[in-house]
Amino acid sequence: MLAEIIIIGDEILIGQIVDTNSAFISKELNKIGIQVTQITAVPDERNTILNTFQNATSRAQIVIITGGLGPTKDDVTKKTLCDFFDDKLVLNQEALTNVHELFEKHLKITPNKLNEQQAMVPSQAVVLQNKYGTAPGMWLEKNDVVFVSLPGVPYEMKALLQNEVVPRLQQRFQRPFIVHKTILTMGMGESAIAEIIEDWENNLPETVKLAYMPSLGRVRLRLSSKGTNESAIHAAIDQQVNGLKKLIGNIIVGYEGESSIEEVVANLLKARGKNLSTAESCTGGQIAKQMTIITGASQCFSGGVVTYATASKTKILGIPQSLILKYNVVSAEVAEAMALSVKKLYQTDYAVAATGIAGPDKGEGDKDIGTVYIGIATPERVFSEKFNFGNHRAAVIKRAANTALELLRKEILKN
Amino acid sequence: MLAEIIIIGDEILIGQIVDTNSAFISKELNKIGIQVTQITAVPDERNTILNTFQNATSRAQIVIITGGLGPTKDDVTKKTLCDFFDDKLVLNQEALTNVHELFEKHLKITPNKLNEQQAMVPSQAVVLQNKYGTAPGMWLEKNDVVFVSLPGVPYEMKALLQNEVVPRLQQRFQRPFIVHKTILTMGMGESAIAEIIEDWENNLPETVKLAYMPSLGRVRLRLSSKGTNESAIHAAIDQQVNGLKKLIGNIIVGYEGESSIEEVVANLLKARGKNLSTAESCTGGQIAKQMTIITGASQCFSGGVVTYATASKTKILGIPQSLILKYNVVSAEVAEAMALSVKKLYQTDYAVAATGIAGPDKGEGDKDIGTVYIGIATPERVFSEKFNFGNHRAAVIKRAANTALELLRKEILKN
Repeated sequence: MLAEIIIIGDEILIGQIVDTNSAFISKELNKIGIQVTQITAVPDERNTILNTFQNATSRAQIVIITGGLGPTKDDVTKKTLCDFFDDKLVLNQEALTNVHELFEKHLKITPNKLNEQQAMVPSQAVVLQNKYGTAPGMWLEKNDVVFVSLPGVPYEMKALLQNEVVPRLQQRFQRPFIVHKTILTMGMGESAIAEIIEDWENNLPETVKLAYMPSLGRVRLRLSSKGTNESAIHAAIDQQVNGLKKLIGNIIVGYEGESSIEEVVANLLKARGKNLSTAESCTGGQIAKQMTIITGASQCFSGGVVTYATASKTKILGIPQSLILKYNVVSAEVAEAMALSVKKLYQTDYAVAATGIAGPDKGEGDKDIGTVYIGIATPERVFSEKFNFGNHRAAVIKRAANTALELLRKEILKN
Repeated sequence: MLAEIIIIGDEILIGQIVDTNSAFISKELNKIGIQVTQITAVPDERNTILNTFQNATSRAQIVIITGGLGPTKDDVTKKTLCDFFDDKLVLNQEALTNVHELFEKHLKITPNKLNEQQAMVPSQAVVLQNKYGTAPGMWLEKNDVVFVSLPGVPYEMKALLQNEVVPRLQQRFQRPFIVHKTILTMGMGESAIAEIIEDWENNLPETVKLAYMPSLGRVRLRLSSKGTNESAIHAAIDQQVNGLKKLIGNIIVGYEGESSIEEVVANLLKARGKNLSTAESCTGGQIAKQMTIITGASQCFSGGVVTYATASKTKILGIPQSLILKYNVVSAEVAEAMALSVKKLYQTDYAVAATGIAGPDKGEGDKDIGTVYIGIATPERVFSEKFNFGNHRAAVIKRAANTALELLRKEILKN
């Protein structure tokens, strides 16, 4: 069962927007045993799109299209679908009702005629209603190839894909199971690993595929397999992982998971009836924001402070000026004091704190750019760890936030 | 002058990695007048790659390839290039020296034979030395089509593209100028804008192209044009922008490339020697995080509080319980009290506050999902506005944060 993804939009071809949709779609299709064999991004141009549709039809049974469904003149996907399917646009009453509801409820205005045109769809299309936006999804078939057209706005696309498209694909096609397991290693380069596991790699069964994914200081090894018997595939992969463990067990640090770190932390906290607060300096609200984005965050996240300026650490968190002067604002002592203080202020079970230098300037610290101390306060103790997250400001902030949540996760699991 | 980009790697097709390389490459090529007409991602499979090369050759004069250049078995790009160019791999001495230097200098180990194979390149290739990694870039030509193969690691690819590829393309091809100007608007939907500017849009010259790009709480309008006379293109675009200003000047908040809303706010504050604090409920740190990501944020952003739980609004910000009971926690009164309180706590000139219901549950409020009150405290006054940002949690949070900063921007400008 092969699928292709077609991303439509000039903004992709001029590099104004990074396409994140295709990675999401690929992952979701893989989960249900559908392999994506090509992703093609093309501009909002009728003839190019028609050619791309035609080429995809010759190779795949499923074609997922995103983008070009807006109400304005530059969007041509719907008209081009009509040309390709020799069809015409008709009004879909349910989609029209949705347009009116979205406008009248949320924007408190009446939709204009362009908005109403969002409810026009090819007559052959099964309409997939979009509750987050005015452009409906569309499901069309031609010579046994399924075309699904989705809006390009990521959260609209995601909801439609998960709620409408995936269940229909599951029903429509017999699919094998595709299983990936990604092993995280740390401390050895890919060539050195390849040398050690050479015999193991040469003896991999035909059905199990290995990929190396290196990045600074870290190599991920992905094992993939597919077949009709899900438990047999899992067993085959697990067997190979066990073989790997014997060879490079010392550098394996974990396995890549499905959930984000904040989801894992939130679930751990909720299951234990515990809650969290945050005290952030260099991360400036990133940790709080990651916790808040989770549905039902209020059950486990009480809030936090962003004490970005040094003075606010004293004023809001009551960190003694003397402690800051003695150890420096970027220090283990200040990170721990911040964690303890915010835990008390918000009366939570756990607290995380981060103080560091995100760059590009050194600020008030005497430490290198990228240095971050993360403090964790738990019902039992307080501790901190020092890290260096490189010299790219946005990356330092993101890495520090993820690492703080990762440290917290490990600590919660101990209790 | 048309170019295509080919991204090689299974990790892209299973959605394990978001491809950010092609957006970067597209942008850089656009800057030198080269238009990218297709981006294709394919797996590490010889035949698929060969077909993709062949198809690209029939449409474009420049083909930029990334990925598949690692030393391990799963990487097949180099061998496939040899097949396509009917060539064989030879040792490049300079690349071998580079491999040794990278290993011996930075990793303090001797490269193994797999690492040394990184210095093998097709004999016809012009080798582009990679100072950040072991895989060199390669420049090959066939029937007047230029092929450039680059490593997939983003910072290696970027350095090679900018330092080696762009200068060679500039020398090799006569190119037109491509100019994009993106206008940022806020406060009106794309359909409403399209209605107002309909006549203007219909009268756009053939050479100027318009695109609408709606995203959370704002619509971006992109004008594009190309030609051989750079200043004439700029003049043509500026003329159209002036036409737009007359029609929708009230909703134009800036131009892209210039700045994000947080940069605009930070620059306004810095220029006036003023500073800001934030009190966030439903936005949970998003506003603080946006301010912090800016280089030099400490000059204008003192920090803030995330009072996510209702109790913390009373405890941390001292919002009277009676006020919350009387007006509800999601109300103009509470938003204004939060702004005033955090302004006092952090002793800042300005403060923004947000309280609302991000969904998917209604929480403690009696208001609709998506309702957000934004409070702004200035040296002169405090006020608030009510909004509805829809029913998607992550989108509500992002829109609320952008709108809060936009309200603040307008207010600072009055002083």
